Order: sequence, then structure tokens, then C-alpha cells
Amino acid sequence: MTDSNLDRNATHKPFRRLLLTGAAGNLGKQLRGALAAWADIVRVTDIAPLGDVAAHEEASTVDLADEAAVHALLEGVDAVIHLGGISVEAPFEDLLEANIRGLYNLYSAAQKQGVKRIVYASSNHAVGFHPVTEVVDIDAPLRPDSLYGVTKCFGESLSRYYFDRFGLETVCLRIGSSFEQPKNPRMLVTYLSYRDFIELVRCSLFTNRVGHAIVYGVSDNRTKWVDNTKTAFLGFRPQDSSVEFEHLFPVTAPTGELDDPTQRFQGGPFVLAGPMEPKR
Amino acid sequence: MTDSNLDRNATHKPFRRLLLTGAAGNLGKQLRGALAAWADIVRVTDIAPLGDVAAHEEASTVDLADEAAVHALLEGVDAVIHLGGISVEAPFEDLLEANIRGLYNLYSAAQKQGVKRIVYASSNHAVGFHPVTEVVDIDAPLRPDSLYGVTKCFGESLSRYYFDRFGLETVCLRIGSSFEQPKNPRMLVTYLSYRDFIELVRCSLFTNRVGHAIVYGVSDNRTKWVDNTKTAFLGFRPQDSSVEFEHLFPVTAPTGELDDPTQRFQGGPFVLAGPMEPKR
Amino acid sequence: MTDSNLDRNATHKPFRRLLLTGAAGNLGKQLRGALAAWADIVRVTDIAPLGDVAAHEEASTVDLADEAAVHALLEGVDAVIHLGGISVEAPFEDLLEANIRGLYNLYSAAQKQGVKRIVYASSNHAVGFHPVTEVVDIDAPLRPDSLYGVTKCFGESLSRYYFDRFGLETVCLRIGSSFEQPKNPRMLVTYLSYRDFIELVRCSLFTNRVGHAIVYGVSDNRTKWVDNTKTAFLGFRPQDSSVEFEHLFPVTAPTGELDDPTQRFQGGPFVLAGPMEPKR
Amino acid sequence: MTDSNLDRNATHKPFRRLLLTGAAGNLGKQLRGALAAWADIVRVTDIAPLGDVAAHEEASTVDLADEAAVHALLEGVDAVIHLGGISVEAPFEDLLEANIRGLYNLYSAAQKQGVKRIVYASSNHAVGFHPVTEVVDIDAPLRPDSLYGVTKCFGESLSRYYFDRFGLETVCLRIGSSFEQPKNPRMLVTYLSYRDFIELVRCSLFTNRVGHAIVYGVSDNRTKWVDNTKTAFLGFRPQDSSVEFEHLFPVTAPTGELDDPTQRFQGGPFVLAGPMEPKR
Amino acid sequence: MTDSNLDRNATHKPFRRLLLTGAAGNLGKQLRGALAAWADIVRVTDIAPLGDVAAHEEASTVDLADEAAVHALLEGVDAVIHLGGISVEAPFEDLLEANIRGLYNLYSAAQKQGVKRIVYASSNHAVGFHPVTEVVDIDAPLRPDSLYGVTKCFGESLSRYYFDRFGLETVCLRIGSSFEQPKNPRMLVTYLSYRDFIELVRCSLFTNRVGHAIVYGVSDNRTKWVDNTKTAFLGFRPQDSSVEFEHLFPVTAPTGELDDPTQRFQGGPFVLAGPMEPKR
Amino acid sequence: MTDSNLDRNATHKPFRRLLLTGAAGNLGKQLRGALAAWADIVRVTDIAPLGDVAAHEEASTVDLADEAAVHALLEGVDAVIHLGGISVEAPFEDLLEANIRGLYNLYSAAQKQGVKRIVYASSNHAVGFHPVTEVVDIDAPLRPDSLYGVTKCFGESLSRYYFDRFGLETVCLRIGSSFEQPKNPRMLVTYLSYRDFIELVRCSLFTNRVGHAIVYGVSDNRTKWVDNTKTAFLGFRPQDSSVEFEHLFPVTAPTGELDDPTQRFQGGPFVLAGPMEPKR
Repeated sequence: MTDSNLDRNATHKPFRRLLLTGAAGNLGKQLRGALAAWADIVRVTDIAPLGDVAAHEEASTVDLADEAAVHALLEGVDAVIHLGGISVEAPFEDLLEANIRGLYNLYSAAQKQGVKRIVYASSNHAVGFHPVTEVVDIDAPLRPDSLYGVTKCFGESLSRYYFDRFGLETVCLRIGSSFEQPKNPRMLVTYLSYRDFIELVRCSLFTNRVGHAIVYGVSDNRTKWVDNTKTAFLGFRPQDSSVEFEHLFPVTAPTGELDDPTQRFQGGPFVLAGPMEPKR
Repeated sequence: MTDSNLDRNATHKPFRRLLLTGAAGNLGKQLRGALAAWADIVRVTDIAPLGDVAAHEEASTVDLADEAAVHALLEGVDAVIHLGGISVEAPFEDLLEANIRGLYNLYSAAQKQGVKRIVYASSNHAVGFHPVTEVVDIDAPLRPDSLYGVTKCFGESLSRYYFDRFGLETVCLRIGSSFEQPKNPRMLVTYLSYRDFIELVRCSLFTNRVGHAIVYGVSDNRTKWVDNTKTAFLGFRPQDSSVEFEHLFPVTAPTGELDDPTQRFQGGPFVLAGPMEPKR
Repeated sequence: MTDSNLDRNATHKPFRRLLLTGAAGNLGKQLRGALAAWADIVRVTDIAPLGDVAAHEEASTVDLADEAAVHALLEGVDAVIHLGGISVEAPFEDLLEANIRGLYNLYSAAQKQGVKRIVYASSNHAVGFHPVTEVVDIDAPLRPDSLYGVTKCFGESLSRYYFDRFGLETVCLRIGSSFEQPKNPRMLVTYLSYRDFIELVRCSLFTNRVGHAIVYGVSDNRTKWVDNTKTAFLGFRPQDSSVEFEHLFPVTAPTGELDDPTQRFQGGPFVLAGPMEPKR
Repeated sequence: MTDSNLDRNATHKPFRRLLLTGAAGNLGKQLRGALAAWADIVRVTDIAPLGDVAAHEEASTVDLADEAAVHALLEGVDAVIHLGGISVEAPFEDLLEANIRGLYNLYSAAQKQGVKRIVYASSNHAVGFHPVTEVVDIDAPLRPDSLYGVTKCFGESLSRYYFDRFGLETVCLRIGSSFEQPKNPRMLVTYLSYRDFIELVRCSLFTNRVGHAIVYGVSDNRTKWVDNTKTAFLGFRPQDSSVEFEHLFPVTAPTGELDDPTQRFQGGPFVLAGPMEPKR
Repeated sequence: MTDSNLDRNATHKPFRRLLLTGAAGNLGKQLRGALAAWADIVRVTDIAPLGDVAAHEEASTVDLADEAAVHALLEGVDAVIHLGGISVEAPFEDLLEANIRGLYNLYSAAQKQGVKRIVYASSNHAVGFHPVTEVVDIDAPLRPDSLYGVTKCFGESLSRYYFDRFGLETVCLRIGSSFEQPKNPRMLVTYLSYRDFIELVRCSLFTNRVGHAIVYGVSDNRTKWVDNTKTAFLGFRPQDSSVEFEHLFPVTAPTGELDDPTQRFQGGPFVLAGPMEPKR
Repeated sequence: MTDSNLDRNATHKPFRRLLLTGAAGNLGKQLRGALAAWADIVRVTDIAPLGDVAAHEEASTVDLADEAAVHALLEGVDAVIHLGGISVEAPFEDLLEANIRGLYNLYSAAQKQGVKRIVYASSNHAVGFHPVTEVVDIDAPLRPDSLYGVTKCFGESLSRYYFDRFGLETVCLRIGSSFEQPKNPRMLVTYLSYRDFIELVRCSLFTNRVGHAIVYGVSDNRTKWVDNTKTAFLGFRPQDSSVEFEHLFPVTAPTGELDDPTQRFQGGPFVLAGPMEPKR
């Protein structure tokens, strides 16, 4: 499917109502435009201000740790794209509320409301303690590189349980570095262009059956640390590559101490970022 | 190799005599043209009428269940492309004659006549009870989705035996859906263009050593349920893709009940088609 | 479970009615005694004479290739131990009737009669073309060493289909050499004592869920070519070993030509036994 | 090592101070006796009353969710045996406090206090949604069968992070059913005798290097769903078996509906137990 | 990175000093030009005459079996591209000096001089006794096809030791057939264009961490016997293919005896070339 | 086979002539007694004095690096047990002569003299850089822990080549620590009793086909770092265990720094022993 065979003005689009959490974030903003073509109604939510609300959108500000609010949020929803929560290393207490309690609230509500599928923003930091001299596929053992990464592992386990228990499908996107462009040499490997990110969400929503799937979100970069062969049933084929950004970084001989963990492991600086002290 | 370095008018083409069974079928018709460039003589056979016979062709109508006729058919043959037999679900008695007894007759005769290699039309229905949320390679356990699929498993075992016992080489083509174009969304995944089908047969015939090989016959479609990495020694690289046909099918949210076997398993409607009652 | 906690005189034994095919054969005779404790009624059948019939037994002589007779045979049956058919290399036509058509008749009838489980005598000859310098587990590729072995592969595929399609459970026993004692050095490796054979059938019948399982039937011999780790859920633990028979065979340096297929492959003499000419 | 080469009256035992959490629970009680031989001082803790305190013991009642209390608890500790928290399905809020927040507190404090190793009571319910017709090893994908199981997956990820980040070693014990004797037929498979449990903890504490290890805690039962081959470096060899308890359960034909999840999956009744409503 | 973002006139290039051994050989000559852009100083060495020496080059003729000379050669070197030694089958005594003693001298000296990385020309002949009907990845068991191949296995083991022991990184390039163009049909599979060879060396030198890596050096040929998926962290993507040379070889039916080892195994004629008698 | 069914006084024993190298060493001495029952003539050799020579023995002092002497040594030999060479870390030059040149001489001569099989004393030091928190099987990547270990890898590659090239069979014994009793706690894991060592050699000599096999030589110790499942075709079942020696070593908490390589890796002190300077 390409957007060309979607009639954006048709009365009924493929989905009746999609929920997008984390809609005010970096990736949420990228996605809001695309969702117009996929659903009659797009419910957008965040803990932060959501900006202008389009005609097809329903906006609400919700703290995911607020159980009742989350249950209300899920009413009438067909499928969810869950980008909400904290996406960097943070004090455990904060991660606990946003990424653990918040995620439980989301799944609990989704199951009760009959939601069929959730596209869940997991992270390559769930496996960031694998060395950069290894290529991991989706069966590689979990190696979280931060407490943030640990909460992403939690999300993958929780969603697996809801699939095995209730048939609620999830695609866990182990997103790399999705920005306008790579910010450092490591991101040449983990780069996911916005266009490829949107395509990955599209595949995750429209593939007829996904079960409980895990897929790495990276563009077709020259250097690869991940292998999506086993999730080829999603039909995700990145069109972009970080090759065009290689010129941004000076060519150097291998740098730094051989034992430097931020150079040895796929997680890069995350592997030293935690655990963080609470902000008291 | 491309056709460009074949002199179609040369006295001697690469093979002296090729046998094509099932020559009157859908795929047989596609292949007859190509074979002219590969062999001095192409022996074509089917249980159905074979139409016009070209100068380089020898035509004979044979029931594969007829042992004597099959032995005669194999005389003087260098290699066989075996598309004959039944290629859809059918009553067991019919499958037994065409795909089991018939196949045994073919291999028994081929071995006695000194045939070196058989390209055997197996089917993705030999593994059709694998879920659509899995990517199978050639070592995936057999999971036939129909009695037809069971007979294809039989063919893979029988040909393995003839290779281990006598060195008679076989390439088992697990052909997906080879038609002018996909007829339904599932076929976007299983589509094998006619051009890619012919190329797959070419690779199977001309690769210098194949042993007993299994390969999936699909074009380079966006979504993949199969992985040919382990058979890359055949040099098969599809040039077509079902992407150009995606516009034929309306974009919809995931459809049908989650448990619907025709949606859950790679075999699609085959998984419910059998067993069929005999036509009495 | 051991026999000690079975009350052989109880009105109701675990099964109401078990069917034993091939009851007049070598292994069938071993099993008849044990079955008395497991079922109120034991229906025994063979194409050969069945000898004395016990009070709890129902005997009938049936050719498995006779569809109607097989359907009658399965009436009222809870579970089947299928030892019937041909268990050595034979002309294809004979194998076709007994092991292919006959097996289809059995499964077709069993499914229609609501049978829950079949214990199927497959054979190590389904994988006999693996070399003796390899240890195969149940995921090893099929390598039949004879046309007989090919029909056992067929049985494993057919039973898999009936499980995936209808939930009819099967345990495929890849039985080695089950005799009073090993008859040659090779059987020191493949030996399955009668006691262990009966225990293996017991595990296969009484384990609460078996799905479609494959298990090697060998005693705890010193030398092993097979590995049952993945089927440990059956609880089969052999108590016997061929060690006690090692003294029967003279100790020699390695014998025969290095390339001799009967010495190189696990199937032993089977690898050269076929294909056999029909007895005409 | 056996207890015979430990001088229980020696001034210095192998460990200076061990911490046992969950000391008032079923397994904690079993272990307290054994610990006397392994450490000069055994600090025991629970949220419930701890009963009589021996001369070599330090007792304190602590709620693991109380961060400050946990940090105090870890002072001066060499190694921890963590049996604390909730060990059955419970409302999420309760599991969150005891098994997630509590576990984080434990690891955070242990790392800061320089603890070298934690023996962590994980559970087979971390993989309880694997079918009973499969044998899982420690690389099997996580398949929690309950919210309780999800928290055990969290514990395995969190402890992995602390090992990769700080070198704090953990052995995750995926304990089956450790009671006086099996209470139902399923527990014949998952049974871990008290003696074997204590031996497993001993191996986990005294093996010189364990890294981050996962091991199944089951006795040498006849039927096996798990395989510890890859953790053989721990030297755990169970001495008991549930065979002696098989007589307790009547021998029956396979029971229940084929689709009954409590019969199909290794987790048994856990697979339907959650999610539980909060006790409000 | 592409050459475009290298300033060839900059005072400091990425490396201060690179050492190229085997600089007078076929591949050495190809590489000398490229190295000018990568290092301020390129030290070139060979046992054969080195031809004209460029301004940025330091040339010295050294026999690798001469320990003292090799230690002097490594002084002040940042990284080594080791193409030296014998690259075809030869009498053992010659291989021993050049490829075993010489390699030990190189690694011993490199470690003492603080060299960080060596790019080592291993060979597909380290695995040449794998059949042509198999696709090998870097974990395929070693199957040297010649004494030459055995010495390449030695080099892979020795360099692994120096990495595990001292952290000295090595990329082992299992180079196929790197010539202007393929010289026979087998080389259509093993062909590595000069351009791709240079790119492979570039990736091996500039990837920030490589540990001890093994990678196959082949262009993107149609037929593949090797799979580099697990070394995708090097970022090597061949741009050339032997397809353009396929027209050079006549299209034929499969040729030669089925058992001919030079046709059955990936090593081709190497598999019969050794062992060679010493030249006395 | 057990010794009981060998008639030690029979004119002809299983082998006509066996060659034992390294016969004056620790293990060689253990084996000499056993060989009397296996061969009419036992040729014993070493570079050191061989002591008393029995009636059935032929003794000769040979330096394995002496090509002509080794060729003479192999005349008339049926099979070889090769324990000769250096079995500890040593300067490279010494290892080169004894373990590389010497081994080549042995295989070259054996092939020319028509020897059928060699039992080769490899070592667990070929994989000693695997961590002690891993269980390695025979497909684990080579990780030599010393230059000595590198030469053992060489031996495994060379013998593989002679098998693939000429059909000369080898069993590589990766012997652990074979002494009267373990000398330190690490040897509790690697201990191979003399009785089990002799049994392992017996299995390696008498198993009818071994191809090129690798097997770990350890007794049935409690803690295991190795797994022989894939070589179960040899029939090696150790009868001894280091359990009886555990009392020799004081029970302690885990010792030493976590990063200490001699504690982290299976090779123990070997991992730091090399490279050694030549004795000049």
C-alpha cells in the first residue's frame, strides 16, 4: 500500500479511531500528519501541550499514571500508537510512574475497551548492552543499558502477556535514533529517518496479523547492528539511509580507549547515564 | 548467465533433451518458450492436450500413474522439470495417483534412465500451517496445510532419498502464487511473477551442483514469509515484486476474526480446504 | 505413574477402548499384555491371525487399505496404537497400500470417529541417511534411507496435518531395533528393549498433552545417535541398555571400507535395501 | 563441597554476613537452617513476623518498598538471597510495590553497599505461556503467564542491567513448585524438593563466578519442561524426584478440553489467574 | 565515509602510520594508492621488489620469518594491513616459514609495539571443504581445503588469541578471488572486485570497534556461498558484481562427474592441490 | 565392549599394531598398560626415555620434528594415539617444532603409510578463553588461551584437512586435567580420571566410524563447562567424578577480583601464561 491508493476525503478511512500518545513529542509530531489518512478520527494525547488541533483530531491532556483518565482515553479506540512516557534515562521513580504504571494503565484499559492492536515504542536501549561488534536480531537476549531500557523490557514483557492472555496484538518498535539527522557518529548506525519511522508505524498498523512482534526501527544505513529478517512479515523496507550524513563527521582512526563502555556497547552514552538520583 | 550469451541457433544447446511435465498447465505454458533456448529437444507431456508442438519439441500425453508409460517417457532425457500432477487440494485418492504413485514412477524411471537432475514443483503449502507472523527458511519443520501439501512433503522426502541413494539431484521449488497478478491480498506476499518463475527454473537447471535443494519461489515482494538465505548458492534473485499490484486491493484495517485460520496461517484458504470427499 | 497404582480389576480403567493395530506382529504381541491394565476394552487388529483373544479384547482382521473396514474399526475408540503396516523395505506398491493408503484410511476414520490421540510407529529409518558420526534430534532434517523410510516420513507429515487441522494428537515413535536382544553391532546403538518400548507407549498415551510429538525409541545404550531432549515433556526414561549384550559381539578394529554406506549411515543395511522390484 | 567439610563452629564461615529476604515465607523457613553453616551472621528479614531468632541471626522487619529501610538493611552484607516480595498472582498495584519498586530498592542499595552477589527468586511463571509440549531452556523467549510473571521478567532485566553496568552478579532461580510434596499432577513436573532448593541456593552462592545466570529450579522429575544444560557451570544436580509422589494422583486418560489454557501451558492455573482487580 | 570528505592535503590524515605487508603482490599494488588518503605515512614492505616509492611511503624489504626485522618493521605503526606471506598452496615447509612463523613474528612485534589493529588477509580456503550446495557464515566450522588453508586457520586462531589476551584487534578477511575479472566459472561466485576489496579494507580500518572479526571478501555476485550478516557491523557493502562477466563463460549443462571434489567443494581446485612435496 | 570380552592371550587382538607417542609422559604411562589388550604390537615412542619395554612393545626414541624419523615410525601402523609434543605453555619456537612441524610430520607420514585413524590429544585450552559462566559444546568458536592452545587449534584444523582430503579419521580429545586428583578448585571442573581417560581413548579407537570428531575429556564432575551431546556417537560415558575430591579444598565465598582473567575464563592460569620469551 502507498498513500496514493487512499482517498483522504472518503467518508470512511481504514480505521475509525486511532489513539496517538506522546503526540506532543518529537516523533508524535511527525506522525500526526500521516494519521489523517489512516483514520476518521485521531485522538491525540500527551502530558504536554498539544498545539493546534485539526478537525479530525480529538485532543486530551492525560497523565498516563492516572488510571481513570487512561481508561477514559481508550474508549472507542480501534488501535493505539503509544509513543508516550519517558524516552531517555531518568530517575527510577519517574520511570516507574510513566513507563511502568503508565503502561499497565494503558494495556489494562485497552483490553477492557476491546482495542485490537497497540504499536508500542520500545527502544534499542532494551538491548543496548550488546557490543558494537555484534549484530542482534529479535531473539537476542535482553540487555538493557539503562533503567530506561529496563522499563522498555518491562513493556515488551507486559505486551507479550496481554497477547498470550487476551490476543491483544502489539508491535514493539525498537526505535534507534529518529531525528532530522544523526547527531554523532554512533547515530549513523542507529539513524531512523522520519519517513522510515512513519512507514514502520504504517506497516505495524496495517499488516493483517502481527501477533506479538518485535522489530528494529533503523533506516537502511551502511553499518548495521540489528537484523530484522525474522520480522520480514511486517513488510517494513526502509527507503532512507544515513549515508547522506556521513560527510558531517570527520573521518578519524578508531578513537578512545578500547574499554570505554560508551564505545564498546550499542547503547552508547546510555550505558553510563544511569542510575540517576531522584530530583529531590 | 543471461539469455544474451545463448546462441539460440547453435547446433548444440546446453542440454540435449529436457523433459517438461505438466506442460499444458498454467506454469508449463510459461516455461515452454524459455526451454527452446536451453535444450536441443524439449519433450513436453501432460495428461491434458498440449496444443501446438514446436519443431524442437516432442509431445506425448501420459498419465503419470502409468508406470510403463512413464518409463518410456524418461528415455534419453538429461533433466526433468516436473510440474505435473495435481496442484490444488483434491480428494486423497486423486492425489495418491497423481502426486504419490506418479511421482514414484517418475523418480524410479529417471534413476533407471540415468537422468541427472529433476526440478520438482513442490509448494509453499508444504509449510502452510506456519503462522503469518513467522518467517520460515528451508529448515523450518514441515507443516502441510492440506492433503495436497502432505503429498508435496512426500515428494520432498522421496527426492531426498533418491539423492542420498543414487546421487540424482533435485531442486524442490516451493512455489507461492504464480499468476499474471495477485488475486487477493495474501498473494501480495506469495506472488511469483512468471519471469521470476522462469529464472528460478533456469537457476535450478544450470547451477553446476545443487545436491538436494529446497528454495522458496516468491518474487521480491515487500512482505516476506520466507527466507532463501541458505539456498543462495542457486543464484536466484527475483527481479519482480508485487508492489506494483498493491493498488488493486483496498487498504483496510486488519480484518476478520483473530482466530480465523485462513488469516492466521501462511496457507490461507488451503488450511480449511481439505480433506475433501472423493467424487463418487 | 507405575502399574502399582492401577487397579486392574477396577470397573473403569483409564481408557474405555484402545485400538491396537499390527497386534499380531513382534511388538504388537509385546504390548497386548500391557494394554489390559490401561483400558476396559482393547480392540486388536492385524492382517495376520491374532491368536487367542482375551476377555477384555475385541479382535478383528482388517486390511488397512480397506477404507470401509478401517472406518468400522475406529468406531468407539478413544485412542490408537498404530503398529500396523509394513515395517521393513518392500516394493513400492506394497508400501503404498499398507503405509500410505492404509495410514490415510486410519487418520480419516479416526478424525471422523472423534479419536483423540494416535501413537504412531514411525521409525529411525525416517532419518537413516544421517551419518553415524552425527547425533540427530527431532529437528534434524528428514533423511529416509529406504522407500519404507519415505513412507514413515509421509506418516509424520500426514499426522502433523491432522493435528494442525483438527487437533488430533499424535506421538510419532521413531523406533530403533526392538527385539529380544541386538542381532548385530549396529543394534547395540539402536536397541530398544521390550520393557522400554512398552514404557514409551505408556508415556505417549498418558501424558496429558502431546500435541504432535516425535520421539526416538531407543534404550539407554552406551553409544547414542539420537537425542530426545526436546521431547522430555513425554517423561520417557529408558531403564534398559544394550550394555549387557555387548559381550555378544567380538571386539574388532573398525571394519569395512570407509565409504561402505551400510557402515557410514545410521540406517545400516536399509540404505542399500531399496528400491525393491515388485514381486510379479 | 558438602556440609561435611564445613566446620560449623569455626570462627569464620565462608561468608561474613548473608541477607535472607522473605525469611518468614515457605522457602525462607527452609533456608534459615542451612544458612547457619554458610555465614557468621545471617540477617533475616520479612514484612511478616520472623519467629525465633537464632544467635547467629539478625532479624528486622522491613517493607521492601521503603527505600531508606532497604538501604539500611543492606549495610555490611556480602551476598543476598532474595525470596521477598509477592510470589503469586496479585493486583498490579501490590506487585508494583513489592516486586518492582521493592526490587529496585534492593538492587540500588546492594550496589551502593558493595554487595557482590544476589540470588534472586525468579519463577517458571516468567515463561509459563510456553506450551507443555515444549522443553524450554534459558534462552527461550520470555512468556510471562501472569502479571506476577511479568514482574519476574522485570527482575531478570533489572538484575541483568546491574550486572552489565556494575558487575553485581545475580543468579535468577526460576523456581517451580517447592512444597513438601506435589499438590496436583502438574506439580509432578514442576516439583522442587526443599533439599534440592537448598542445594540450588548453595550452588548459586558458592560457585566462584556466575555472572548473570538463569537456572530452572526443578528436581530430577520424570517429565521435564525445562533444560538446564547451559547453566551446568553452577554444578546444580538435583537429588530428588517427584517419582515417589506419582502414586498420589489417579492415573487417567488425558483430561479436559484440548484448548483449555490451564492444561496447554506450562503455567497451569496461573495463565487464567490475572489480571486481578485491586482490593478496594 | 567516502573519499570525498578526506582532505588529501591536510597535514594530518586519519592514521599517522600504516604498515602494508605484501605490498608488491597483486592486491598490495591495488591498495597502495588508496592508502595515501588514509595515513600520513605508509610503510610498505614485501620480500619482493617494491617498485617506485612515493613521497608518503617508507619502503623496506623484509622476510617475515626474520624475527628481528619484523620487530623493527612494526616500530611506530598504528595499524597493519597484512597481505604478506604465501597465498596459494605450497610445500609445508614454505608455508611454515611465511604463514606461521612469519605471522607469529608479526603479532608478537605488533603487540610489543602497541599496534592497535591488524587487517589480516585470511582466505575462503579456510572453509573451502564446505560443499558448493551450502552457504557458510562466519560461524561455520573451519574446513581448510589445503595446507595453505590450514595456515589461514592458524592465523585466525593466533589473532583471536592476541585479541582475547591483549585487546589487539583483528579483522580477518576471507578473501575470495580478487582479480581484474573472474578467470573461470567458479570465480563468478568468489569474485571480489578491486574496488570492493579496497572498500573492505577501508571498513576494516575505520570502523571504531571491530574486536576480532571475520568477514567474507566477495562482491555482490549473483550466486553466493557465503553470508556476512553477522559482520554487518563493519558496514561493508560491495558495489560490484560478477554479473558483468558472466558472458565470458559458455553456458553449459552441469559438468563433470558428480563426485569430482573440485566441483563439489567451495575450494575448487585447491581441494586437490595439496599436500605438495617440498622443492628439493 | 568391556575388557572382559577380550582374550588377552589370543593370537590376534583387535589391532595388529598401535603407535603411542608421548609414551613417557604422564598420560602415556597410564595408557601403556591398557594397550596390551588392544593390539598385538604396541609401538611406543617419546623424546624422553621410555623405561622398561614389554614383550609386546616396540620402543623408539624419536623427535617429532625429524621428518624422516617420523616417516619410519609410522610404518606398519594401523592407528595412532598421539600424546606427543608439548602440553603446556612454552616459547613459540618450541611449540612450533613440537606441535606444528611435528604434527605435520605425523599426519604426512600417517597418510603415506595408510594409517586409518589417529586419536589426537588436543586440549580444553583450545577453547580456554570462553568464560566460566558458559557451557561450550564442540561447535563453540575456538578461543585458544595460550600459544599452546593456538597449536592445538592448528592440530584440529590440520587433522580436519587430512580427513576431508584423504579420509584419515581423527578423534580430537580436548583433555581437561588428567592427574591422580585435582590440584586446585578449578580442576574439580576439568578433572579427567585416568580410568576415564583410558576409556575415552578406547571409545575413540574402537567406534566403527568417527570421521573427524571432537570430544571433551572430562569425568562426570558436578560442575560442567563442556557438553559432549553432539559426540555421543563415541559412546564415551565417564564413570568417575571429582566429587570425591571436593573435600580437599576449603569452602570459601567467591574469591579474587571479579575481573581476574584466571578466574573469569575456563583456561585458568593459562590465560596469563603466554606468550613466553624464548629460552636463550
